[in-house]
Amino acid sequence: MLELMYDVLIVGLGCAGYTAAIYCARYKLSVFIVGSEEGGMGVTAAEVGNWPGDIDVKGPDLMERYKKHALSFDSVKHQIAWVKSVAKKSDHFELTLDGGETVQGKTLIFATGSQKRHLGVPGEDRLSGKGVTYCATCDAFFYKGKDVAVLGGGDSAVEGAAIAAQVAKKVYLVHRREEFRAEPYWVDKVKEKTNVEFVLLRNVTEILGDQKVSAIQLDKEWNGSTQIPVDGVFIEIGATPATELPKALGCDIEPRGFLNVNADMSTNIAGAFGAGDVTNASNHFAQFATAAGEASVAANSVFNYLQQAGGEAHKGGSMGGG
Amino acid sequence: MLELMYDVLIVGLGCAGYTAAIYCARYKLSVFIVGSEEGGMGVTAAEVGNWPGDIDVKGPDLMERYKKHALSFDSVKHQIAWVKSVAKKSDHFELTLDGGETVQGKTLIFATGSQKRHLGVPGEDRLSGKGVTYCATCDAFFYKGKDVAVLGGGDSAVEGAAIAAQVAKKVYLVHRREEFRAEPYWVDKVKEKTNVEFVLLRNVTEILGDQKVSAIQLDKEWNGSTQIPVDGVFIEIGATPATELPKALGCDIEPRGFLNVNADMSTNIAGAFGAGDVTNASNHFAQFATAAGEASVAANSVFNYLQQAGGEAHKGGSMGGG
Repeated sequence: MLELMYDVLIVGLGCAGYTAAIYCARYKLSVFIVGSEEGGMGVTAAEVGNWPGDIDVKGPDLMERYKKHALSFDSVKHQIAWVKSVAKKSDHFELTLDGGETVQGKTLIFATGSQKRHLGVPGEDRLSGKGVTYCATCDAFFYKGKDVAVLGGGDSAVEGAAIAAQVAKKVYLVHRREEFRAEPYWVDKVKEKTNVEFVLLRNVTEILGDQKVSAIQLDKEWNGSTQIPVDGVFIEIGATPATELPKALGCDIEPRGFLNVNADMSTNIAGAFGAGDVTNASNHFAQFATAAGEASVAANSVFNYLQQAGGEAHKGGSMGGG
Repeated sequence: MLELMYDVLIVGLGCAGYTAAIYCARYKLSVFIVGSEEGGMGVTAAEVGNWPGDIDVKGPDLMERYKKHALSFDSVKHQIAWVKSVAKKSDHFELTLDGGETVQGKTLIFATGSQKRHLGVPGEDRLSGKGVTYCATCDAFFYKGKDVAVLGGGDSAVEGAAIAAQVAKKVYLVHRREEFRAEPYWVDKVKEKTNVEFVLLRNVTEILGDQKVSAIQLDKEWNGSTQIPVDGVFIEIGATPATELPKALGCDIEPRGFLNVNADMSTNIAGAFGAGDVTNASNHFAQFATAAGEASVAANSVFNYLQQAGGEAHKGGSMGGG
């Protein structure tokens, strides 16, 4: 049986995945790129602002541009599918997709990104999708003229509150600390909004509601009550690296939970590399720019790895920086 | 005397410098960005192709977009000047510009990039600017209908040969090896050109000419002669990191000659950081994408450094990833 053997399998359809695909394609490698969600976390950024060279660009538009760029190469095969499992065979890797289909490749790049963190309080799972959501910038639009709470103190929470304030009647920004770790740009932006209330030094202990969200329960009284009636709750308390697949392959995970990569973005498994938010590279700073940089390095390393693996056929074709 | 004290001084006007400026400005820091040449090495890329999200963009246009983005912030002060020297004062840094003017800042980012490497053969310095140039993609235009030699085997040489072939009558691509370390994309591109001659396994030992370049001297006969008559010689044999200023400040330089940076892009001098081609980060892979990624990390670290230095005033305002 003649099996298709790609030069590289890329798991993840975010900035890292698409950038790796672009670089690999320019190295004349055959690429299979797969993921269950197009655009990854990038689509959750309503207003990007820090992708160099684009003053005003929306996350979904930027992700579309990355994708279009990657798919401009004939050697890039793109598929939307959940990757059920990954295995290392004698001299290659094998992905099993949700339909049972398997795909083979000589090398592998994990660009699986991260997943939104859950709060873990009563009512959260039960009301998920019924007013509880994990992406304020994606879903704020559905709460026009309503009251919502945004939970968290980082970039996505504060940006989310600013975005939600443009459509919602009132936004409660609930944060367990007094200071925000979000970019000052966004903190300033949200402070300008007259319909945002800051509920600081408070924790949400329960999400209330029957068929849909009706209120949040606080651990301490605020403005004369321990409950705030809201129609929606946006939980924006950070993200955790999506390491299920690398773990299953036996990749080393560092203490903070990220995929451990070397300077060349290789993992401890020969032929398997990582790039983007899932890794501990770039000082754990998760940005479009760092994802792109890491992906370019990973692709360069894949190219070098294949040249060395190719032996005589590729002898002498060493690769340096651009 | 009241002196202006910037939060951060950025030396270098390339992708790394401008990206650092964008990030620092979004952190609400005051920025002084300076360099002698706008756009750095980026302007030498005729066709970029691997900046994710932009299938067709020219180097100078991309650099212009980075610059425009950085200067869209009121808190960014931009100056074209040669930085003569840098000094660490008790609690800040001081740059001295070529006119004698001094500028003070609490922190410093070296984004000085790299400089084109010289061949070191007789005739090279004497004929520099008289047919000898170090940027094929910048200067090829001036050799319309003429014969030129491009020296080197990396990306800039092979890309340069492809670009030169569009205007020159004949292009000799002279490389001391048989294989190219350039991106296969560019190698294919240049092989398609009918007016490019590959002069392989040959070294250029002298550049000949009286008032201007007339020929190159080879170490071994090629096509019946050890000389090839040409009107121009483009020397594209790589670049070396521009570490004069970091060295003068006492920054650690690693064995390969790059500015040694930690994971957070800090150097061994407190308050001084690095980003882009000058550093040993990103596995020494010098790309727009890696420069941008490193610069975002450096800016984040500058922000953290200033918050810690700020003491009580900033207490609690810790900074995490975006």
